[in-house]
Amino acid sequence: MDVPTTTSSPLGSRAVVAVHPSGDAAPELLDPTLPALYIDDLAAVRGDGVFETLMVRDGAVRNLDRHTARFINSAAMLDLPAPDTGRWHAATDLALEHWVASGGGDGSLRWMYSRGRETTREPTGWVTVAPEPPAVARGREQGVRVMTAQRGYSLDITKDAAPWALVGAKTLSYAANMAALRYAKSHDLDDVIFIGDGERVLEGPTSTVIMARDRDGVREILTPLHEVGVLPGTTQAAMYRLAGEAGWTCSEAPLTVGDLRNADGVWLLSSVRRYARVTALDGTPLDRPVCADEIEDLATRAAEGR
Amino acid sequence: MDVPTTTSSPLGSRAVVAVHPSGDAAPELLDPTLPALYIDDLAAVRGDGVFETLMVRDGAVRNLDRHTARFINSAAMLDLPAPDTGRWHAATDLALEHWVASGGGDGSLRWMYSRGRETTREPTGWVTVAPEPPAVARGREQGVRVMTAQRGYSLDITKDAAPWALVGAKTLSYAANMAALRYAKSHDLDDVIFIGDGERVLEGPTSTVIMARDRDGVREILTPLHEVGVLPGTTQAAMYRLAGEAGWTCSEAPLTVGDLRNADGVWLLSSVRRYARVTALDGTPLDRPVCADEIEDLATRAAEGR
Repeated sequence: MDVPTTTSSPLGSRAVVAVHPSGDAAPELLDPTLPALYIDDLAAVRGDGVFETLMVRDGAVRNLDRHTARFINSAAMLDLPAPDTGRWHAATDLALEHWVASGGGDGSLRWMYSRGRETTREPTGWVTVAPEPPAVARGREQGVRVMTAQRGYSLDITKDAAPWALVGAKTLSYAANMAALRYAKSHDLDDVIFIGDGERVLEGPTSTVIMARDRDGVREILTPLHEVGVLPGTTQAAMYRLAGEAGWTCSEAPLTVGDLRNADGVWLLSSVRRYARVTALDGTPLDRPVCADEIEDLATRAAEGR
Repeated sequence: MDVPTTTSSPLGSRAVVAVHPSGDAAPELLDPTLPALYIDDLAAVRGDGVFETLMVRDGAVRNLDRHTARFINSAAMLDLPAPDTGRWHAATDLALEHWVASGGGDGSLRWMYSRGRETTREPTGWVTVAPEPPAVARGREQGVRVMTAQRGYSLDITKDAAPWALVGAKTLSYAANMAALRYAKSHDLDDVIFIGDGERVLEGPTSTVIMARDRDGVREILTPLHEVGVLPGTTQAAMYRLAGEAGWTCSEAPLTVGDLRNADGVWLLSSVRRYARVTALDGTPLDRPVCADEIEDLATRAAEGR
């Protein structure tokens, strides 16, 4: 997760690489103190592109394969040319090399892939590395107070019925997600869980929702069905593999807000933040369950997976 | 309207001005052949900003007051600082001056107002001028074949129920609008009319829908209700004033696709394209009505209003 309202590092402390997604040019290290995008780039003009945010830890990105797979899927949903993954990975290596050489520590690495410039019709793309924003660690350590919020679109509009709605693609058109987070903060809350008709749980603006039940010998972790327009979570997927090995039953289900309220624990998962336990849901406190340490250890190992 | 898929002019033929929306710096002419945006600008990273597109004709922008009012409203919906309109107008003058001096003719002028850079937390903004894309003139001259498309969000999610949905704000998060236009073009169509529940007519991805009835002594022009998440059209509003003076009854109504099919004429209105008559709706041809010349003259005069 990378909530921009808490980032305050100077851009000079970032690494920026131009990917040149098409054509013959190799990935190119840019001066982070200079502008990089042309004014007619459709990333800025229309939010017309896709992105991924990867955790950087110990000088390497984590869950590269899962992020790559989702990136390819998002690009396909936007009819962007299939990303040349070798080139994106080379750009990632170049950015990390520079990041580490200039003393950068743990942080987040972002892929941005744009339809490109209006004037050239060539796709554009960048890899950037930035430090972990302070609010990310805070959410992990202290948990988050969350409000539920109607997402706004119909659940019966699936990507099959209205492919242009881009439900399930990780696009650069995140203004509504950011607006929901601002709304929460203006009400002294930390984060949001989007819901649909019938209080069906969807996802956070920048996270995947999971809940745990750990009682009467049942140990299960649940996450909302992907069918209802939920972005598949890379951390959640990695965690499911680890949790399954540890004896948890892991599944997707049509969860409601009532299910979350009755869970033993609810967490938001994302690559950089790893996890943030929901300490209050729409004002109702959720106590820290006995299984919390175990769940959070699983989430950490999942997010840090190579 | 400025469908990017048809623009192919070199960026050097554009004018670009940095507005510096906050702080003390005056609007500043930029070299259009150099990058203007930093990689951490939330316009590009999140589509987190608002825009307007104004017609440039005879060296001046048209309907400045209407665009300014909508720009202020969009900014407020995104919790952006209220734009300093004097500064935006000064930047517009500077861009037009340079545009005209360098031989630019009719075209479109765009305001882009972004939440700004992650690293500085200062809003950013630009004014750009570009030539009219060829497809714009073609739509005006030949009309457009249109498909209806479910917008994707619930009509019962108004801006009051879910303000974060940003319904009715002209945001930089236009990826879904662009996807709908691409979908239409891939089906050999030219444009889209978004619809909601019950085939309720909303708007085009970059236009306002109007229909005319001209029979049995009734001469009326109708446009969808704004209450259902339709962006107020500057050209439509200007046209309503002119059409009213010319004896047309002009109103908003809860229009359905059936109403459009039974109309004497249907048009898409937008600032730069002015008008494009719908020549076929979901495959059903719509003949050019007797009143078309009059309607299109009204739309032209409306779009060219000072």
